Amino acid sequence: MKFTQSSLRVGELATGQELSVPVYRIPAQDLDAPSVFIQANVHGAEVQGNAVIFQLMKQLEKLDVRGEVTLLPLANPLGINQKSGEFTLGRFDPITGVNWNREYLDHKLDVASWYQEHGHLEDKALIKAYRLLLIESCQTHLNNEWGVTTGKRLAVTLQRLAHEADIVIDLHTGPKSCKHMYCPEYDVASASLFSIPFSLVIPNDFGGAMDEAAFCPWWQLAEYVQSQGRDFKVPVSAFTLELASQERIDMEDALEDAKGILAYLSHRGVVSDKLEPAEMARYGCYLKDYKKFHAPTAGLVEYKAELGEPLKAGMVLANILRLDLYGTDNELTGLSLEQDCVPILHFASASVYQGTELYKVMTNLFEL
Amino acid sequence: MKFTQSSLRVGELATGQELSVPVYRIPAQDLDAPSVFIQANVHGAEVQGNAVIFQLMKQLEKLDVRGEVTLLPLANPLGINQKSGEFTLGRFDPITGVNWNREYLDHKLDVASWYQEHGHLEDKALIKAYRLLLIESCQTHLNNEWGVTTGKRLAVTLQRLAHEADIVIDLHTGPKSCKHMYCPEYDVASASLFSIPFSLVIPNDFGGAMDEAAFCPWWQLAEYVQSQGRDFKVPVSAFTLELASQERIDMEDALEDAKGILAYLSHRGVVSDKLEPAEMARYGCYLKDYKKFHAPTAGLVEYKAELGEPLKAGMVLANILRLDLYGTDNELTGLSLEQDCVPILHFASASVYQGTELYKVMTNLFEL
Amino acid sequence: MKFTQSSLRVGELATGQELSVPVYRIPAQDLDAPSVFIQANVHGAEVQGNAVIFQLMKQLEKLDVRGEVTLLPLANPLGINQKSGEFTLGRFDPITGVNWNREYLDHKLDVASWYQEHGHLEDKALIKAYRLLLIESCQTHLNNEWGVTTGKRLAVTLQRLAHEADIVIDLHTGPKSCKHMYCPEYDVASASLFSIPFSLVIPNDFGGAMDEAAFCPWWQLAEYVQSQGRDFKVPVSAFTLELASQERIDMEDALEDAKGILAYLSHRGVVSDKLEPAEMARYGCYLKDYKKFHAPTAGLVEYKAELGEPLKAGMVLANILRLDLYGTDNELTGLSLEQDCVPILHFASASVYQGTELYKVMTNLFEL
Amino acid sequence: MKFTQSSLRVGELATGQELSVPVYRIPAQDLDAPSVFIQANVHGAEVQGNAVIFQLMKQLEKLDVRGEVTLLPLANPLGINQKSGEFTLGRFDPITGVNWNREYLDHKLDVASWYQEHGHLEDKALIKAYRLLLIESCQTHLNNEWGVTTGKRLAVTLQRLAHEADIVIDLHTGPKSCKHMYCPEYDVASASLFSIPFSLVIPNDFGGAMDEAAFCPWWQLAEYVQSQGRDFKVPVSAFTLELASQERIDMEDALEDAKGILAYLSHRGVVSDKLEPAEMARYGCYLKDYKKFHAPTAGLVEYKAELGEPLKAGMVLANILRLDLYGTDNELTGLSLEQDCVPILHFASASVYQGTELYKVMTNLFEL
Repeated sequence: MKFTQSSLRVGELATGQELSVPVYRIPAQDLDAPSVFIQANVHGAEVQGNAVIFQLMKQLEKLDVRGEVTLLPLANPLGINQKSGEFTLGRFDPITGVNWNREYLDHKLDVASWYQEHGHLEDKALIKAYRLLLIESCQTHLNNEWGVTTGKRLAVTLQRLAHEADIVIDLHTGPKSCKHMYCPEYDVASASLFSIPFSLVIPNDFGGAMDEAAFCPWWQLAEYVQSQGRDFKVPVSAFTLELASQERIDMEDALEDAKGILAYLSHRGVVSDKLEPAEMARYGCYLKDYKKFHAPTAGLVEYKAELGEPLKAGMVLANILRLDLYGTDNELTGLSLEQDCVPILHFASASVYQGTELYKVMTNLFEL
Repeated sequence: MKFTQSSLRVGELATGQELSVPVYRIPAQDLDAPSVFIQANVHGAEVQGNAVIFQLMKQLEKLDVRGEVTLLPLANPLGINQKSGEFTLGRFDPITGVNWNREYLDHKLDVASWYQEHGHLEDKALIKAYRLLLIESCQTHLNNEWGVTTGKRLAVTLQRLAHEADIVIDLHTGPKSCKHMYCPEYDVASASLFSIPFSLVIPNDFGGAMDEAAFCPWWQLAEYVQSQGRDFKVPVSAFTLELASQERIDMEDALEDAKGILAYLSHRGVVSDKLEPAEMARYGCYLKDYKKFHAPTAGLVEYKAELGEPLKAGMVLANILRLDLYGTDNELTGLSLEQDCVPILHFASASVYQGTELYKVMTNLFEL
Repeated sequence: MKFTQSSLRVGELATGQELSVPVYRIPAQDLDAPSVFIQANVHGAEVQGNAVIFQLMKQLEKLDVRGEVTLLPLANPLGINQKSGEFTLGRFDPITGVNWNREYLDHKLDVASWYQEHGHLEDKALIKAYRLLLIESCQTHLNNEWGVTTGKRLAVTLQRLAHEADIVIDLHTGPKSCKHMYCPEYDVASASLFSIPFSLVIPNDFGGAMDEAAFCPWWQLAEYVQSQGRDFKVPVSAFTLELASQERIDMEDALEDAKGILAYLSHRGVVSDKLEPAEMARYGCYLKDYKKFHAPTAGLVEYKAELGEPLKAGMVLANILRLDLYGTDNELTGLSLEQDCVPILHFASASVYQGTELYKVMTNLFEL
Repeated sequence: MKFTQSSLRVGELATGQELSVPVYRIPAQDLDAPSVFIQANVHGAEVQGNAVIFQLMKQLEKLDVRGEVTLLPLANPLGINQKSGEFTLGRFDPITGVNWNREYLDHKLDVASWYQEHGHLEDKALIKAYRLLLIESCQTHLNNEWGVTTGKRLAVTLQRLAHEADIVIDLHTGPKSCKHMYCPEYDVASASLFSIPFSLVIPNDFGGAMDEAAFCPWWQLAEYVQSQGRDFKVPVSAFTLELASQERIDMEDALEDAKGILAYLSHRGVVSDKLEPAEMARYGCYLKDYKKFHAPTAGLVEYKAELGEPLKAGMVLANILRLDLYGTDNELTGLSLEQDCVPILHFASASVYQGTELYKVMTNLFEL
């Protein structure tokens, strides 16, 4: 089965040129199979997710796809096309500085009131009504008489589409990074169904990102419904996958990641073919134990610690080279941490201000 | 009396070069007179506050200054020196996009517990102890073993110094703007002591800006102390002044603004000379009524509404010119609002994406 | 008569999105009347030329247009859409730094050889053949097997179209600027046919800009043909108009500038209606006397000299304010020049590094 | 022997902060030994040269240094400190777009006249007088009454110091690059004395870069003197070394490159210790055969060709992935060249506009 292509309008450039996102879709063969929404490249430099979507499409066309699959590569045309020097300045709106991945809508629903009105519905109808509520909330926000910001329009337009799906996957990368993923605490078992060695276990709160925007309202609903003594599982799953480093396209590796995602989709019944995730050790850590280490001093940086490999307390993470201090004790300083960790990603540039976020490391890891 | 100059270290550039802020100070003649902290240019393009500090110094040297006065012009050396094309890219950290004026520390104090321990103190001692707590909280934050970001280091280093003062004034400008100021709700009477026609009345919450960082913990203390049946006024005042447009130095106008600030300082007893604010009509509006109007469509913008002048509902705020749509109904579109307002500021550039924040307008104004 | 709209493809963004320029055209009523090419906004922030093209179209639709008129507003879609902070970073390619207006093609023709082959042709046929040569040279350059840069593709695609016209006008603005124009030395009489008070008289050399790209090969041809004893006038005219300041749309002023251009077109017979330029004193200076004054020291700048007004030697051009040097002789320094001049434009920002181009001034002016 | 440190003032930031470059120097033990000037990091992201200077200093302190050695790491403080997003925007002046390495001074000397006056001098005195001329020319340029640009001040201040040396080495890197160097045609034999496999053989013209600025006036002098029948060798050598990729510090590799430079210095008698370059095959190509391949179409790029390895005509250089064209023939396109080459460097980002310089390749290579 082939994907159909359409186009999602998300904004306009100063010249009047329309900003749009390509939307590829395979319709559902089985309306009971979960539907899937996958987007990539909301941060402009994080391009590898597009290659993964490409490989996903090549694979899905050969598989028995039961549920609707909607794929949005190149999801942030403004961010992707924003160069500054030889790199893509795609992490934040160049005008306002706002991170493109912190603009999704917090619906701030009064779940209790809503449930009082709709609690008589059966699960399927309840879910359908709630889904409609979320979609309408997005639409209302976009229609605000005072307008919405460029970033909000992009994010909420994507979110409106994502709310139609049962499974939402947002493909990102780190700056220089090993593969890892964000997984909500209530759904931590799913982390083992992908082919990704490290998982951040995040609380069930809204922090502004797509995955949170997708699962939080459903988790709130489930929690409330359960508190009313009714058996009800969170019906929507959402994950952010960080597929190694930005500014990198690797078609072979993209195929590996596509296969990992397919394994999860197989497990969920989106494809009927039986596909298994890669065998590997998998580790998790709670978001509160995911630490940012900031450059204690400015200088040139030799990144030493290997990403995705355990690093003992006291071992060198990075060297700071200070040519202005040659001949002093501070000409070359090894930086280390006071606790064991696994470095997950580091800064993209080899020179830093004091305070630049140098490394992100997992501490207190546990096997999944 | 002359100002002494010292230097406040706030960071380091990649080359190792120290980032520092000049600090000008006149010591207190009278320890019962309030102390003052004024900073300017935390946003890199908002330079006029420096000229105001210059004129303030020239005036203060001729006056009878009773309380300590501490002045920090050029308060964000990294932001001020960050050019991009012919303009200063100084609103946010060029690496992270974080707004330099949203990095101040929320102490998140447990006021009740603290007051239980210190409630026996007399007002003066209570204030002193609380002030020490705020300063130590800043210091602790700066000493975090994982480091702090570049922007946090700058902000909290400034904040630590600001906490020593009874009056904190942060000098900003809008993009293209008329003069206006931010004034906390509990202190709204003070708005009439400056020479500024428009005031935003803000809630007593912390939103990340310097003025809020300076007054919020004191307002929280006062509120709690009062709830315990003790008479206690908020002992610290803090304001943000928006002195017209960015990328503009006007020495004469700076003198006018300096005189306006001196009128407030005179009223507060910082200077013993009797100085009055300019006579003018003054209007306020609540922050919730301060509306951002976003470009409903992209295009070239002819800004029509005069800043600081009332605009009736339906009158043209701006025209959007669309050369790509010449010959259609949308070639030139007048934008208007559905309610009366006073436009306070507009975007700096004459071309916009869809969603760019075009104007900020006050609605539901009241006379102060 | 109405303009028809078509679209000129000039490149592709990273997402694959086509970059194109709207082309508005009225066909020739009289093939002997000169044809006209006018473009605007090659520098992204210099938007006012678009408004002028808008007003030109509105006027031309009411006039008797004899020659073909081709208008390209929004001529640099990549540059126009490139924001950095609140301003348009549209002066140079954000990747390479190359000025968008220095990318036009120098054909480096061997005029003597060419004339040896084509000298037998009558003027009209000679011009036609040479025009074809220029257009083919552009096309050959665009088809280079190693490709061409983004900026070259844009410039040479525009140039290919411009070569079809007898009159080429490139609409720019200064940063903060009074109105002025660039006029080639051989065509200086034409400067009085526009409504612009100041003219830079430029040598007949190629420096990379559109006006030079348009007239230089023709001037070279004319010079050579004349050297062969044949009477032959330069058949192509080209000008750059600098219509005040960037980041500004003013529809009324655009109408004035449109009328000025129409006066020239009327004089040249492009429109049969009789239209006269505004009455005004007009001054010129040679390019070698157009001086750039660079900031001798860094600091905050109060621009004092009025643009377009004579300034005597020794009078203050600008003040440099140095808050870091308060209390010293250098706290506030008036900058002046050693000769009389007319300041034409100044830098857009109010803070400068040492060496920033602060003002451009005309010296040794003469009445036109 | 230890290096002494001093500081070279090269400009001022908007805040007034001085821009300066650290200068490390060992004085001459033998005035007949050649003197050396090495600078690094004129392009802000090209940091590895600093590490090489660090290792050079460590080595030189243990060697018998005969000639004066002057080392300037971090040679462009403004460029190094200019971040844009997570990378260093250090290739061009952020205000003007001018490449920092195209600002050196072309003295445009009238060598014939000068030699007429000084031709009677013996070689050593002739060289000394000419050197003085070059230094004074720099100084005169810096003292221009109209000022000089920020970039010119930096470049000419560095150049003035470089003119004092007999050997000038400018340390750069490519974006993603293998090691290569630029060597003037007259001095091509020297390319084999470094430990670098690929050399660009450049003409003896001035193109604006430091190496050219250092050797061109001497080559012009030598050529003229020889034309007068006098035996005279070009007394100054200058090279640009491209030490792999930008945004990378590798201390071990820096030691290798330091040893390569020391081998050349040993050969030239700057150090008396006998040091040999690494054994390797070395290849050269003329600058005219160093080809830039521009992206024929926009898209995401998978860089396939290995840098520094021969690539046969028709083999895939890179793949262009176009998610917007999925399902068409253009979804994934392999790019290849029509001739054999060695790819030397490629663009830093994995997404490109149409026309982005994708690869630089050597063609028509010859063994050195």
